[in-house]
Amino acid sequence: MESQARKAEDFRGLHDRKRVLVLPNAWDVPSARVFEDEGFPAVATSSAGMMVSLGYPDGETVPVTVFLSAVERISKALSIPLSVDVVGGFGSTAKDAVAIAKKVVKAGAVGLNIEDFVHSTKELVPVKAHAAKISALKELGRSLGVPFVINGRTDALRYAKGDDEARFQEAVRRGIAYRDAGADCVYPMGLVEPARISEYVEALDCPVNVMVRKGLPPVPELARLGVARVSFGPSASYAAMALLKRASKEVIRKGTYETLTADAISFDELNSLAVPKEHGKPTP
Amino acid sequence: MESQARKAEDFRGLHDRKRVLVLPNAWDVPSARVFEDEGFPAVATSSAGMMVSLGYPDGETVPVTVFLSAVERISKALSIPLSVDVVGGFGSTAKDAVAIAKKVVKAGAVGLNIEDFVHSTKELVPVKAHAAKISALKELGRSLGVPFVINGRTDALRYAKGDDEARFQEAVRRGIAYRDAGADCVYPMGLVEPARISEYVEALDCPVNVMVRKGLPPVPELARLGVARVSFGPSASYAAMALLKRASKEVIRKGTYETLTADAISFDELNSLAVPKEHGKPTP
Repeated sequence: MESQARKAEDFRGLHDRKRVLVLPNAWDVPSARVFEDEGFPAVATSSAGMMVSLGYPDGETVPVTVFLSAVERISKALSIPLSVDVVGGFGSTAKDAVAIAKKVVKAGAVGLNIEDFVHSTKELVPVKAHAAKISALKELGRSLGVPFVINGRTDALRYAKGDDEARFQEAVRRGIAYRDAGADCVYPMGLVEPARISEYVEALDCPVNVMVRKGLPPVPELARLGVARVSFGPSASYAAMALLKRASKEVIRKGTYETLTADAISFDELNSLAVPKEHGKPTP
Repeated sequence: MESQARKAEDFRGLHDRKRVLVLPNAWDVPSARVFEDEGFPAVATSSAGMMVSLGYPDGETVPVTVFLSAVERISKALSIPLSVDVVGGFGSTAKDAVAIAKKVVKAGAVGLNIEDFVHSTKELVPVKAHAAKISALKELGRSLGVPFVINGRTDALRYAKGDDEARFQEAVRRGIAYRDAGADCVYPMGLVEPARISEYVEALDCPVNVMVRKGLPPVPELARLGVARVSFGPSASYAAMALLKRASKEVIRKGTYETLTADAISFDELNSLAVPKEHGKPTP
C-alpha cells in the first residue's frame, strides 16, 4: 500500500494547475501500455471503451468480476498511475460506491471517476446522493491510506432541465457540491466552448477536467483557460474503430491493405505491450 | 449444435476457391463486431492481438479460462462464423489440442487455427505430431457434429533449417501432411511473393491461406494466384496501436487532437458494437 500511496500522491500532484494534465483513456492492456510508452505521466480507463471491449454497453451492466479482471490486467501492465472510471459507482448508494472503489483500489487504481447520471434512464441522480458517494470515497481513501484522486463527473450540461444557461448553472452547482464533498477534480461532461470553460473554472476554483472532442481548444489554450486536466474519454476507441472501418472498406472495395500496413507497429512491439514497460523493452 | 453445424458448413463453403475469402482478425468484441458491420462474411481472432489485449504475450501463457472467456464474449457478439486461433493447441499432444478445441467449439467457434511451432523456443514441432493433432481435431468435428474448418498453419518458412529453398520445400512437405491429416486449409506463415504463392498453391492443390503484410499482392492478384483465403493476422492490432502512437505524439508535441477526432465513430455506434448486429442497430 505504501508505494500505491506514493503513486496516488504523484497522481494528485499532476492536478496542481501549473500545467494541463493530458490523460489518455485506454480500453485494454496494450492501449494503456502504448500510452505509457509514449510518455504520458498517467493513464485512465474509458468506461465506454472498456465496457464495449468486454462486450457490454457503457454503464453498469457488465458483471463486476469481469470489470475488475479487466482493471487488474491493465493495472498489472502499467508502471505509472492508473485512474479507473467506475461509472456511477455500480449502484445507487454511497455503500455501493465504496464497495466497488475498494476493489478497484485493491486492483491498483490511484484515481477514480464517478458520474452523476444513470445510463439506462439518462437521468441525473440527486446532487446530495452523489455528493454523499464522493464523501464516502474520500473517507475510504483516508481509511485505506491510499489518497486516491476522486474525479467527480457531472452530466448536468447534457441532462439537467431547462435551457443552456440553466444547465450550465446546474453543472456549476453540482460541481461545487462535489468539490465540497471531497472531489479532487470536477468533470463537467460536454464543456467545450472557451468562454464557458473559463467561466466554469472561475466559478469552481478547483481542478477541472475537460474531454477531447471536436472543437475543444488545444492544450495550450486550455492552460490559459485554467483547465487542470484534459482526458481522451472514449475518443481513442472511436478513432481505432473508425480505422478498422477504413481498412475494411479499402480491402473490400479495392482489395488493398494500405490502411492496415502503411503505419503499423511490429509483432515484437505488440508483444512487448503485454508486460510492464521495464520488462517489455528489449535489453539495450 | 444444429445451427452451429450449418454455420460451420457456411464457413467451409467460403473456402471453395471460387473467390478469395478475406478474413479479418479481431482482438476483442468491438473489433470483431465492426468487421461484421462492414460486411465481411466471417471473422477470426488474432492470437497475438487477443493475447496481448488480455495482458499476455502471443503464445500459450494466457490462462485457458481467461482465453475462453474472451472467445465467448466475441462469439456471443457475432452473428457470422467465427474462427479461433488456438496457437499450438495449448499443449504438445493431440489430446491437448482436442481439449482446447472442444471448449472453443462449445464457445461458438466454427473454425480453428493451429500452428506447428512453439512460441517460447521458436522451434517447429515434428510434422507427425502436428499432423496427429489435425487428425484428432478432424475426428472431434465429426463426433461433435460440428464440422469446423481446420486451418493448419506452418511456420516452416521462418523456422525450418536450411536456405530459403529448403524452408520452402519443408513448408510444402508440412502443408501436404496437414492437408492429408484433415486440414481444410493450409496456412504457410510468411508466404508473400507471387511466384512462391503460386508454386505453393499448385503443390498443395487445396485451400491456401496467406496473411496481410507489406508487399502482399492485392486481393484480385491473390485470386489469380489461386489463394483461397487472406487473413489480417495481427495487422489490425498493429495499425490500431500505431494510431494511438500518432495521436499521442500529436497531443504531446502540438497539443491538438486531430488524429483522435478527424475520423471517429460516435458514442452510440461504439455502444452498438457491444451486442449482436441484429440487436445493435437502431431500428429503421
